[in-house]
Amino acid sequence: RVNADRLWDTLMDMAKIGPGIAGGNNRQTLTDEDGEGRKLFQSWCDEAGLTMGVDTMGNMFFTRPGTDPDALPVYVGSHLDTQPTGGKFDGVLGVLSGLEVVRSMNDLGIKTKHPIVVTNWTNEEGARFAPAMLASGVFAGVHSQDFAYGRKDPEGKTFGDELKRIGWVGDEEVGARKMHAYFEYHIEQGPILEAENKDIGVVTHCQGLWWLEFTLTGREAHTGSTPMNMRVNAGLAMSRIIEMVQSVAMENQPGAVGGVGQVVFSPNSRNVLPGKVVFTVDIRSPDKAKLDRMRAKIEAEAPKIADALGVGCSVEAIGHFEPVTFDPKLVTAVRNAAERLGYSHMNLISGAGHDACWAAKVAPATMVMCPCVGGLSHNEAEDISREWAGAGADVLFHAVVETAEI
Amino acid sequence: RVNADRLWDTLMDMAKIGPGIAGGNNRQTLTDEDGEGRKLFQSWCDEAGLTMGVDTMGNMFFTRPGTDPDALPVYVGSHLDTQPTGGKFDGVLGVLSGLEVVRSMNDLGIKTKHPIVVTNWTNEEGARFAPAMLASGVFAGVHSQDFAYGRKDPEGKTFGDELKRIGWVGDEEVGARKMHAYFEYHIEQGPILEAENKDIGVVTHCQGLWWLEFTLTGREAHTGSTPMNMRVNAGLAMSRIIEMVQSVAMENQPGAVGGVGQVVFSPNSRNVLPGKVVFTVDIRSPDKAKLDRMRAKIEAEAPKIADALGVGCSVEAIGHFEPVTFDPKLVTAVRNAAERLGYSHMNLISGAGHDACWAAKVAPATMVMCPCVGGLSHNEAEDISREWAGAGADVLFHAVVETAEI
Ligand SMILES: NC(=O)NCCC(=O)O
Ligand SMILES: NC(=O)NCCC(=O)O
Repeated sequence: RVNADRLWDTLMDMAKIGPGIAGGNNRQTLTDEDGEGRKLFQSWCDEAGLTMGVDTMGNMFFTRPGTDPDALPVYVGSHLDTQPTGGKFDGVLGVLSGLEVVRSMNDLGIKTKHPIVVTNWTNEEGARFAPAMLASGVFAGVHSQDFAYGRKDPEGKTFGDELKRIGWVGDEEVGARKMHAYFEYHIEQGPILEAENKDIGVVTHCQGLWWLEFTLTGREAHTGSTPMNMRVNAGLAMSRIIEMVQSVAMENQPGAVGGVGQVVFSPNSRNVLPGKVVFTVDIRSPDKAKLDRMRAKIEAEAPKIADALGVGCSVEAIGHFEPVTFDPKLVTAVRNAAERLGYSHMNLISGAGHDACWAAKVAPATMVMCPCVGGLSHNEAEDISREWAGAGADVLFHAVVETAEI
Repeated sequence: RVNADRLWDTLMDMAKIGPGIAGGNNRQTLTDEDGEGRKLFQSWCDEAGLTMGVDTMGNMFFTRPGTDPDALPVYVGSHLDTQPTGGKFDGVLGVLSGLEVVRSMNDLGIKTKHPIVVTNWTNEEGARFAPAMLASGVFAGVHSQDFAYGRKDPEGKTFGDELKRIGWVGDEEVGARKMHAYFEYHIEQGPILEAENKDIGVVTHCQGLWWLEFTLTGREAHTGSTPMNMRVNAGLAMSRIIEMVQSVAMENQPGAVGGVGQVVFSPNSRNVLPGKVVFTVDIRSPDKAKLDRMRAKIEAEAPKIADALGVGCSVEAIGHFEPVTFDPKLVTAVRNAAERLGYSHMNLISGAGHDACWAAKVAPATMVMCPCVGGLSHNEAEDISREWAGAGADVLFHAVVETAEI
């Protein structure tokens, strides 16, 4: 078993960097706080005797050598960046449990044939720069590096400039590394494990996603002196589209979600009907055909809704991944580890996207999950118990060591 | 007649300060640009031989003496601040036409019994600090100065601190001045004069307003891993409330408007269901009973809509004025002036709120309006012709001089 107390202390130490306003964290990607978090993580990995490599996307790789010089490494990791009002565990648990696996191997003097590489992927959250899982996507060849470098945050700063600014442009070519296997441990971010009273989620699939960014063009006009019949009201069109997205998601139950997290009115003044409204629809399903049908329906209905109000409507898909099936052999390794350790477990489909989804494109990959209180995530109140954290780390430890071959 | 070309050049010179992004202006109240605009206006008034007074709300008063030392002044003015994406005429036309009236009086050697005071009121727009017409409201005793000083912009800066920062805290006690009459010339900001092909709006009334700021409290949660039936979706509640406000306005036709110009999602991240949504409903009617009925209906329905989704709902009235009836004698003076000058005219109810609405609480007051292209205002594309501008200024000139008694 790993040292669950040491893991917990390490989690709490990282949570001191970029504190939020309600007990969580604001350590968004490529901010000064992200830079600080990276340095702290690096110092821990140094102490554990690991060797650092950083690629041109700022992905961090810390290697514990194996006994066979020709064996590809087993990767284990997740992300240290958070949402603007994020929790202390989303992503961080996976990175620091990777470190804990290595620390425990050091304690026990375990040597493996395959090297172990503990990984921190840049910009998983996609909050500051869309899309999510950006750097693992470049690693997997899904996006070009130029595309990633050009992504802009709400203030217009680019990913490339900000990565340089915080000093984490590495010299490794992104995606050059080859993996024997990739493991990612994460909190569930949903309610199922807690409701079913299970310690461990054996993650067999991940649902697919579309992010559809709508731009509605109305006519900026005075809220007082513009008669109702002369309004070209982009905000009203947005409201009707949000309602329609809700209906499409409900029509596709079970096995689908849809909602809107981001809305920007322009000029956003109380006495000005918005000339422009930009908002992003997030739809997901484990069923690719259903997911694409939902997208098609939303993209067909939205312009009709807008048109009825005279509002212009354009849409751009700014994030996408297809549903993923994880590697059956690694899934079995996770299940066997849980079984061997006496933890209750069940199969799970990940509701959120993860770097593991892109890693799965280039290597056998899978995930381990632990419950989180009330299924809550992307919320500063996100919480897990020390025991939950430790159980998943134990399972990760066993699955990784077994895959890396003693 | 006034010098319409000089007026136009003066308008265009002021429009150079705080240029917008699409031909209009961003000269929001108490910004550096507002400070620059005030200085330019002051220099013009100095040249015209006027004496400046500034009160503790930053309201600027420029006096041309009268012949009777005991006669109260006739005030003429409006505001130089703009919306974030405002036009070149909203407010500015009224202030600079006041200046043009004085310049024309100087040209013609006209002396009046009552002094003339050209006025620039601080923060009419209410875009940066709610409510609108803030400083004229303090002048009229509707708000306390402490209330005004404590108003915050979206960055949390206070009105009081920002007024000090730009150096326009005057030494006059606000509201100490007494007025013989108050005139305000403004673009219509609506479509009626243009549609009716009239030069001049004789403004008999102004419709009343409520600004209702709603705060909806949902549960911040992951858009992907949170099942539909576990969502507490404040954004969906907002959409339904916006639709309800639209219905309430439509049920109250004719003679009512309602809409939403400002929406703020928190944390406003694509993959986070908003934990908090704040938005402002703007409803207006010339009929006080109807206006209050609309408010009551919206405040009764909104919590039901939110409640059905488990969303918390609170509301605060952050802006209000009752419908105003302008002074019949001054209204007649405006109508007679238009008639005498041969301009076509019609009675008008102002759709927007104006400093004249508060001035009307403490003095006989009225307004003159000119058409604007397409009824468009609170839009950088706001436009009027040189002839329209000049016609209204002529009417203002005659009405002011007549009221000030030669
Ligand atoms: N795990 C996680 O929250 N990832 C962010 C991408 C997503 O929205 O699924
Ligand atoms: N005239 C004008 O736009 N005033 C701002 C206050 C309002 O919204 O009516």
